[in-house]
Amino acid sequence: MTDPDFVQVFTTGGTIDKEYFDAKSAYEIGEPQIGALLREAGVTFPFEVTALMRKDSLDIEDEDRALVASRVLESPSTRVLITHGTDTMAETARAVAAALEADDRDTTVVFVGSLSPARFKATDAEFNVGFAAAAVQTLPPGAYVAMNGRVFDPHRVRKDRDRNRFVAVT
Amino acid sequence: MTDPDFVQVFTTGGTIDKEYFDAKSAYEIGEPQIGALLREAGVTFPFEVTALMRKDSLDIEDEDRALVASRVLESPSTRVLITHGTDTMAETARAVAAALEADDRDTTVVFVGSLSPARFKATDAEFNVGFAAAAVQTLPPGAYVAMNGRVFDPHRVRKDRDRNRFVAVT
Amino acid sequence: MTDPDFVQVFTTGGTIDKEYFDAKSAYEIGEPQIGALLREAGVTFPFEVTALMRKDSLDIEDEDRALVASRVLESPSTRVLITHGTDTMAETARAVAAALEADDRDTTVVFVGSLSPARFKATDAEFNVGFAAAAVQTLPPGAYVAMNGRVFDPHRVRKDRDRNRFVAVT
Amino acid sequence: MTDPDFVQVFTTGGTIDKEYFDAKSAYEIGEPQIGALLREAGVTFPFEVTALMRKDSLDIEDEDRALVASRVLESPSTRVLITHGTDTMAETARAVAAALEADDRDTTVVFVGSLSPARFKATDAEFNVGFAAAAVQTLPPGAYVAMNGRVFDPHRVRKDRDRNRFVAVT
Repeated sequence: MTDPDFVQVFTTGGTIDKEYFDAKSAYEIGEPQIGALLREAGVTFPFEVTALMRKDSLDIEDEDRALVASRVLESPSTRVLITHGTDTMAETARAVAAALEADDRDTTVVFVGSLSPARFKATDAEFNVGFAAAAVQTLPPGAYVAMNGRVFDPHRVRKDRDRNRFVAVT
Repeated sequence: MTDPDFVQVFTTGGTIDKEYFDAKSAYEIGEPQIGALLREAGVTFPFEVTALMRKDSLDIEDEDRALVASRVLESPSTRVLITHGTDTMAETARAVAAALEADDRDTTVVFVGSLSPARFKATDAEFNVGFAAAAVQTLPPGAYVAMNGRVFDPHRVRKDRDRNRFVAVT
Repeated sequence: MTDPDFVQVFTTGGTIDKEYFDAKSAYEIGEPQIGALLREAGVTFPFEVTALMRKDSLDIEDEDRALVASRVLESPSTRVLITHGTDTMAETARAVAAALEADDRDTTVVFVGSLSPARFKATDAEFNVGFAAAAVQTLPPGAYVAMNGRVFDPHRVRKDRDRNRFVAVT
Repeated sequence: MTDPDFVQVFTTGGTIDKEYFDAKSAYEIGEPQIGALLREAGVTFPFEVTALMRKDSLDIEDEDRALVASRVLESPSTRVLITHGTDTMAETARAVAAALEADDRDTTVVFVGSLSPARFKATDAEFNVGFAAAAVQTLPPGAYVAMNGRVFDPHRVRKDRDRNRFVAVT
């Protein structure tokens, strides 16, 4: 039986994991950062990090979303944290919400990412992951987007690219 | 009428605000860090930071706790975030819990701090404040301690000084 | 008359100034970082930062090198620090060395950059700029490349892209 | 025979190595930071770090200074970098200068430290160590103080505690 406090963490890539490779003069998605970030924060809840893919959010396709949803349904944990690029985070969250509903699953899934890479000095990554870690432990079952210090229903949120933030859609 | 999303932030000092003053070769509690931290994280909920005191947790006395509790009751906000030193955080949270109950108040109050100063490169401050910011928005009314990635009932938590972490007391 | 301690700083772009623009999901060369870096380090020598261009090192052309050289010769300062991308840093330094020689100028010019952007938590930028700041104050007239904790003659150095470091060429 | 590029690093403590121990609510001198700092900067010169003591600069006594001087004289390296607290850095540097002169030694010894701990986000540690690393490779034999982006003769420098910086004394 799974420890009820256990948090399954899936990573898919996105800005939070962007690294700079000087040899190529290019930024690419590097190793997932969330595991080290949780350890440095000294969290005492049990967790496991599994990298599902390393993609820019704009490159995530329907089959990727299907994979994420199926991995959520397969997980014995009722608390799942997913790091994801910001541009299509809401879309993947909606796919997972539909899968949870179709399967009648009582799982809380929180999507999080960052607008600035975790490797930067000035980044929202630590704050955002902390925020999402509380959200996944306190929210009722369902799929959520946790960005900019707010919890959003994935059907009622969009990324305002000009202002570089997530805003509620009514 | 208050914006229901508004978060009142009170600061009392503690490790999170520790600064190093070379002129005195000593660490002292400096300017509250949480305001800058929330701004750098790009949060979009409205908040206001008010410094109530600048004390090491071990120096917080009953009259300080009474002041914190009265400021919570006076606040029009139903969401209050309080930064506090870790050694007596639970004790102050219990005082606030008692005040909320006596006054029959539907306010969610979350205490948070950090084990390493926010000014350090390696610190739990950003994660913890992010965690507490979600907790204060999602938890039912009451007073809580949010540390090490967990939400604690202030009557059932203690700081394990040897392991430098908060643990549940049963 | 110029203060003999005055250091003229020119910036040309390169990895040291790379920033991440989430709106474009791309890294580009942002504001020069060296001014803020010198101020945060608390240096007490007088300096002035002038941005000559914002280019990836691989995009620097002969006319850019001619511009850099002419600005060095025009400067009243005998100490010039130049931030530059790493891939063609040595080539620009050789152009400046030739100009100094042709003009019989007693100016010390030190080229510096970083292999990881200054905005990253893990970066060689602060160390490298500190290193270059000492080099420009202590070395005899001439043009130098200062990278990886070493001073190189620009005619005897190359960037080893595979090992991501500068190495002496004999 | 010693590699002429080899840099011997001695550490004595000081602000650069200050760490915060929450269990004691106190800052103390922790592990020397300079080794990790040099490795993160990617320096390619050979070096070795030896911790001689872990003291606040104000606690360094004449016998400590004698020990530092003797270790400098015993070292086969002609380049020695010493991290030291800032308050009495110049005094120890003068002791080493006297020892070098008495022994007629052609060794370049550079003292460096930081006004803010290396573990802080905002610190002069990386810059200062970079500056000192260049100074020790480029300066003629003798003992020097390298702080605030300047090289000082230890007989002509003092720490201006009010302005928290090193200034030349004429």
